[in-house]
Amino acid sequence: MKETKIYYKKTKLSNPVLFVGLPGIGSIGSLVAEHLKKELKAKRFATLYSPHFPYQIIMLKDGSFRLVSNRFYYAKGVKGKSDVVILLGDAQPLTPEGQYEVNERIVEFFKHLGGTRIYTIGGYSMGTQYVKEPKVFGLATDAQTVGHIKKYGVTPTDATGMSVLGSAGMIVAFSKMHRMSAACIMGETGMLDVDANSAKAVLQVIGKLLGMEISLSSIEKLKGETEKMLKELEEPRMQPFPPEMGGRFKGDPSYIR
Amino acid sequence: MKETKIYYKKTKLSNPVLFVGLPGIGSIGSLVAEHLKKELKAKRFATLYSPHFPYQIIMLKDGSFRLVSNRFYYAKGVKGKSDVVILLGDAQPLTPEGQYEVNERIVEFFKHLGGTRIYTIGGYSMGTQYVKEPKVFGLATDAQTVGHIKKYGVTPTDATGMSVLGSAGMIVAFSKMHRMSAACIMGETGMLDVDANSAKAVLQVIGKLLGMEISLSSIEKLKGETEKMLKELEEPRMQPFPPEMGGRFKGDPSYIR
Amino acid sequence: MKETKIYYKKTKLSNPVLFVGLPGIGSIGSLVAEHLKKELKAKRFATLYSPHFPYQIIMLKDGSFRLVSNRFYYAKGVKGKSDVVILLGDAQPLTPEGQYEVNERIVEFFKHLGGTRIYTIGGYSMGTQYVKEPKVFGLATDAQTVGHIKKYGVTPTDATGMSVLGSAGMIVAFSKMHRMSAACIMGETGMLDVDANSAKAVLQVIGKLLGMEISLSSIEKLKGETEKMLKELEEPRMQPFPPEMGGRFKGDPSYIR
Amino acid sequence: MKETKIYYKKTKLSNPVLFVGLPGIGSIGSLVAEHLKKELKAKRFATLYSPHFPYQIIMLKDGSFRLVSNRFYYAKGVKGKSDVVILLGDAQPLTPEGQYEVNERIVEFFKHLGGTRIYTIGGYSMGTQYVKEPKVFGLATDAQTVGHIKKYGVTPTDATGMSVLGSAGMIVAFSKMHRMSAACIMGETGMLDVDANSAKAVLQVIGKLLGMEISLSSIEKLKGETEKMLKELEEPRMQPFPPEMGGRFKGDPSYIR
Repeated sequence: MKETKIYYKKTKLSNPVLFVGLPGIGSIGSLVAEHLKKELKAKRFATLYSPHFPYQIIMLKDGSFRLVSNRFYYAKGVKGKSDVVILLGDAQPLTPEGQYEVNERIVEFFKHLGGTRIYTIGGYSMGTQYVKEPKVFGLATDAQTVGHIKKYGVTPTDATGMSVLGSAGMIVAFSKMHRMSAACIMGETGMLDVDANSAKAVLQVIGKLLGMEISLSSIEKLKGETEKMLKELEEPRMQPFPPEMGGRFKGDPSYIR
Repeated sequence: MKETKIYYKKTKLSNPVLFVGLPGIGSIGSLVAEHLKKELKAKRFATLYSPHFPYQIIMLKDGSFRLVSNRFYYAKGVKGKSDVVILLGDAQPLTPEGQYEVNERIVEFFKHLGGTRIYTIGGYSMGTQYVKEPKVFGLATDAQTVGHIKKYGVTPTDATGMSVLGSAGMIVAFSKMHRMSAACIMGETGMLDVDANSAKAVLQVIGKLLGMEISLSSIEKLKGETEKMLKELEEPRMQPFPPEMGGRFKGDPSYIR
Repeated sequence: MKETKIYYKKTKLSNPVLFVGLPGIGSIGSLVAEHLKKELKAKRFATLYSPHFPYQIIMLKDGSFRLVSNRFYYAKGVKGKSDVVILLGDAQPLTPEGQYEVNERIVEFFKHLGGTRIYTIGGYSMGTQYVKEPKVFGLATDAQTVGHIKKYGVTPTDATGMSVLGSAGMIVAFSKMHRMSAACIMGETGMLDVDANSAKAVLQVIGKLLGMEISLSSIEKLKGETEKMLKELEEPRMQPFPPEMGGRFKGDPSYIR
Repeated sequence: MKETKIYYKKTKLSNPVLFVGLPGIGSIGSLVAEHLKKELKAKRFATLYSPHFPYQIIMLKDGSFRLVSNRFYYAKGVKGKSDVVILLGDAQPLTPEGQYEVNERIVEFFKHLGGTRIYTIGGYSMGTQYVKEPKVFGLATDAQTVGHIKKYGVTPTDATGMSVLGSAGMIVAFSKMHRMSAACIMGETGMLDVDANSAKAVLQVIGKLLGMEISLSSIEKLKGETEKMLKELEEPRMQPFPPEMGGRFKGDPSYIR
């Protein structure tokens, strides 16, 4: 395998919007995308493999496995309005060259599907240990899209000179190049590997964006467990900085699958 | 050399099965493949070189040497049934891109030879120091192949979310993509560089698979030496975690040649 | 994105000279190029993106952002003489292969624009903490260009065997290959992340080169702040050696934008 | 620059032999090649550049410089017998892929010149601090070439399983692939950056090989300085293990130029 490849079943979608949640800071992207997938009962229709991903297979039940991948799911006519596509996966590319190749491929593929807008989900780390009432920050390809996310409670970033690493930022950048509207939505977070509280805040914004109620009970439960664990620990598990990319998912692997 | 290359002598093989044993956890793959090669008096017929391998030559006797490589051996009509091919070597590719290129090339080459099934051999580390009675775990491309290895004493893996690194996993993944039946068979192991006891457990499974008796005396001897050494040492040599890929073979180099 | 790309607006330039100031030792290149851009009221006309750059976007005001890039600006008829082009940016390529690709592309692009000479700006670290009266050192593609920069107060380097890393050196090397006159001009510096004093010394040389007065008040102010900070600190911030390439800009981010 | 390139002046050579001495263990290759170049008054006729080399220029006198390179020199009719080509340089490639590309290119180029045999020069580190009476070890592409070097005092290696890293080994490996006779000649060494004593031992072998007297006075002087320095130091400068590849030349830079 020399190049990133997407295998997919032809699926007729009507003006879909894409939510991207890949491994990253606080696992917020992964938590949100997994949660959305379940809530919308989304169906898998495409898989992306890349020689820039970790060279691993991931064990599943009963002797089955999968090659490290990113996976696309769709849900039709969410709230009678638009179709929704969700991208989640095991890893981000390991090299700069891989990040440029894979993230542009994702945008091109979604454009090919007739997509109209992309939301990438990430974490915005403030360096503190834990954020009790996380804000949701965002940036976008153009002033109109910034205005759009602002309406649903997203605070536009204003930290000139700070940067967003990896897919959450790169996909928005390639969207701009390919003239697609896109926004990066980031939950404020601290130093946790898995920050369910921040993911919850992002999911509330997405619920408003989609005009639907998203049940948050399972993520509430994970949040509760995290907070209990933080109280018990004297020295809580720290997240490496800069965050390790593409590594195995740390935290609660039973939630994210 | 820009790409992975396989040099080979045309060899007529009848529905061969492939056993892959490359350097990795506990050197179990290497030990098993070397042992099989000797037991089956297998003959070399192909050599794989790759620009993604370490840039080293390996000294041999009397001023001779070889470039780091992976090597294919064959044995005809094992137990009057199928032909057997064995792949062993000095290293695995050093980069993600190299792993994706070389492991797919191996599958394509074996398919070209008319191959019917691939078994990759690896170690499954449990973190303990030494495993006295190692189990043999396995995963496979499909439920039928899982059922097949189960018959010979392999326990299907069920550790959802854990991963298998390198060739042992990647070759099974590419087999699945290329619609070839394949299984990864892993000896339970601890933290040894060279775990002859675990290799022995895997060889016993392979003996059953091939319907033949495999003499285990030399590997028994190595196992005995290891256990004696472990008793003598207060702080036995530890294996790095994650395992170093592609490095020089550590342990008993006189056994593996 | 597989290759380095330059997007540009066709701009008619008359025998332009190029000043290159990218992130590097003491941030001298960046400081000088940003300052020149403001002083000459230069206008952006081209942007270079590369898969060898860090995979980051950089936040700007009000939820806007840019992909990591290098940017070209032009100013016409400086002092009624030649047109000036300025190249500055967020990062240098991360890999050797990227450095060879991007730096040659820059030279080819400038040649295509009809360029006549390139000056790269860098720092020349002496290992001391802070240099109060920095010299300006230089090297060039040919004896004539060495003679040219000498006239404006640049001391030709004579440290046989020492090396210049990254774009400041590589662009001069590719200029030589493509038969374009080029010089590397380096401000003597110590171990500061942002050495405004050294940048000032280089700007004075460039003022003479262009035959114009460059206002240095803003850089004087930054220099003053640095010197005050150095007095206050017992253990001043140290710069890693070798310098980190392509990292986020350290120092005073409000100055460099 | 996307690929390794060799620029050369057409030069008529008669059955030349090549001596390769690049940076490596104990700088023995570099010392030997520089010494040979001076002794044979060899003339430069080709330069190799590679995007896999360090991205540096090297300062020379009076503001001049060169891009990191490997350089070919020739001397005609040495001892009335064969023409000699010498390859030396600033660095070895930094990546596995670069090592495979550059070292094969060197062999192909020398074959194109009508070359008949290659000798690569390296160090063979025994882990001790300093070797007073270093042996010279060697390996070769075939038994006949092993026999040939043995005649001149080279001991064939017999350390099955040990490896030779980098160009010294890889060029011999690619020679074998391209059916060119080649030998790797290694001076026994300890942990010095620059081991003139070991280089001297190799030069004595080469003198015999070429049937000529090689004046060793300058290398004797360097050897004397090293031994004096070793006596004076309580903790002599250590060499990193594994040796850093492609880094700047450490030791006595005034000798090697």
